[in-house]
Amino acid sequence: MNHQNDPSSHEFSGRERLLRAARREPVDRPPVWFMRQAGRYLPEYRERRAQGSFLEAVRDPETAAELTCQPVERFGLDAAIIFSDILVPPAAMGLEVRFEEGAGPRLEPLVRSRADVDRLDVFDPEEATGFVAEALRLVRRRIGEDVALIGFSGAPFTTASYMIEGRTSRNFENAKAMLHGDPETFAELLEKITDALVPYLGMQVEAGADVLQIFDSWGGSVDARTYREVLGPATERLICCAKATGVPVVLYVNGCAHLLEVLADLGPDVIGIDWRVDPVEARRRVGDRCALQGNLDPAALFAPPEVVARLTREVMRAFGDAPGHVFNLGSGILPGTPVESVESMLAAARERSGS
Amino acid sequence: MNHQNDPSSHEFSGRERLLRAARREPVDRPPVWFMRQAGRYLPEYRERRAQGSFLEAVRDPETAAELTCQPVERFGLDAAIIFSDILVPPAAMGLEVRFEEGAGPRLEPLVRSRADVDRLDVFDPEEATGFVAEALRLVRRRIGEDVALIGFSGAPFTTASYMIEGRTSRNFENAKAMLHGDPETFAELLEKITDALVPYLGMQVEAGADVLQIFDSWGGSVDARTYREVLGPATERLICCAKATGVPVVLYVNGCAHLLEVLADLGPDVIGIDWRVDPVEARRRVGDRCALQGNLDPAALFAPPEVVARLTREVMRAFGDAPGHVFNLGSGILPGTPVESVESMLAAARERSGS
Repeated sequence: MNHQNDPSSHEFSGRERLLRAARREPVDRPPVWFMRQAGRYLPEYRERRAQGSFLEAVRDPETAAELTCQPVERFGLDAAIIFSDILVPPAAMGLEVRFEEGAGPRLEPLVRSRADVDRLDVFDPEEATGFVAEALRLVRRRIGEDVALIGFSGAPFTTASYMIEGRTSRNFENAKAMLHGDPETFAELLEKITDALVPYLGMQVEAGADVLQIFDSWGGSVDARTYREVLGPATERLICCAKATGVPVVLYVNGCAHLLEVLADLGPDVIGIDWRVDPVEARRRVGDRCALQGNLDPAALFAPPEVVARLTREVMRAFGDAPGHVFNLGSGILPGTPVESVESMLAAARERSGS
Repeated sequence: MNHQNDPSSHEFSGRERLLRAARREPVDRPPVWFMRQAGRYLPEYRERRAQGSFLEAVRDPETAAELTCQPVERFGLDAAIIFSDILVPPAAMGLEVRFEEGAGPRLEPLVRSRADVDRLDVFDPEEATGFVAEALRLVRRRIGEDVALIGFSGAPFTTASYMIEGRTSRNFENAKAMLHGDPETFAELLEKITDALVPYLGMQVEAGADVLQIFDSWGGSVDARTYREVLGPATERLICCAKATGVPVVLYVNGCAHLLEVLADLGPDVIGIDWRVDPVEARRRVGDRCALQGNLDPAALFAPPEVVARLTREVMRAFGDAPGHVFNLGSGILPGTPVESVESMLAAARERSGS
């Protein structure tokens, strides 16, 4: 191979790394970012957040941009992910959303009937959620062109679950009661959420997002057939419309070991896998249809730094040298994570396999 | 086939059904019981439990026997499972265990170091936990010989996680920090717990248990390689010793879709699968090595009764007519479950496929 054209010897920018890896093109090393990288484990985050509520931070573009850039600047990450929340769209659709520190979110009124669904508002994104666009523009100005910028939303099912349960649920009794007991209303809810999310994601791309990630945080709670038949159509439409904006789309589902083929069929460029999924098996099951993102166990970061380095190298080795790996944690970083473990993980993830 | 010898036309007792199905022998219909069947969804349970704390109920043989028999007598189930708790052994090993209603268990002192492990007591089961044996004897006297009686314990990892975290954990930061960061102490803890659980399960069989179930409630939180290499040896020894008492052993792991082959290799007679695992795929992956138990989603019981009946029939159809299916929920029944949904599930689960 001509050394000039060998991608492994060319130095790419972080943005190029992520965009190329998402499309399974060769890179010098896998791009590196991690879920909730703008988070409570960082002292500068805790300091900035001490000044107001979580939702105030989300809704203030200056604060959101500052929090977004903190980990990128501290660690030199390949991508920034906008500091925001998957409950921004439900709030824009007319629900009252509150965050009680430690207790998680509360949404009111609950969405349980057809009349409740009918009352939801398919909002104009610039009007109702322009603060997200403004934050993205501020971040882009600050990080420049060499760092990728990731926009996001919840998947239709995850968004619907919050609306139906009114909180983080463990078992989703009410969401599943509607899913199985009133499938027409449930489908209507997923479609209405999707109607709102499509322009919301479009706005984020217009404001500078290079990549979109769709978080189906609770999608792993249903079996594969239910995911394919009931959740699939709306999620597929959201992915398809998001891709039509021209950026690559990542679909992340926590607890997705039983869903990989179903997720690949929905057409995302990248599937985000959690730490329980073996990367070799994921590659075999997904084939060359999608790149993969993941998948160090965030709880592993509580081990000593040298152990974190070894476990990170094991993850990198498991994904191997084939194009199409975006390094990440298998789910969001945990609040008490030691910063030195993060540094150890990042150093190991950036080692070149040949070096 | 000679009609006399056709197992599908013979009427078996519940006990015969469970024992035969656990060994993949033909039965007239799959045996039916469900996890947490002695539980808060039952008005007679709530009434009896109103008189004292959870641990008092566990430790009083009369109360434990009464709670064990309630669902068996109300629904005519094929098996009783002893009303007890997987935290009985940690308490007998020297930890203080408290249950705060609604907040879950608390264990003290935390087990985090080699010295903490060394302090744990491998207890004499009759002396420290004789109330479990006495409850089993009372239940057997009451249910007679025609209903199976299930004893149980937590798996070594699940028991260890409670000891390390001191509570129900979401992410197992501390357990995984020890698992990865101090593997020798972690292995020692698993082995010491196993040393205690082996005679504890043996006592239950001597007291009348026909079947033993090992609950690895949190085992699904690790990847397959970690389960095989780190959790596997102690779990395999527990299963092997439990089987040596002569009764069939069920290994239940919630969130086990990525672990089926690993679990089958540990040698249980039955693998309990959660609702996310497709029964056809589970059968393909496990082969004829184990029977399968499961797997209706407990959240599905919040749908209307006729929907519950349809979903139950779908589960029965998915498992098919091959021997080796024990009907159950995919995890424990939820506290707010309507009793009429349970009745609807049970009626559908007992329909003969040919009828």
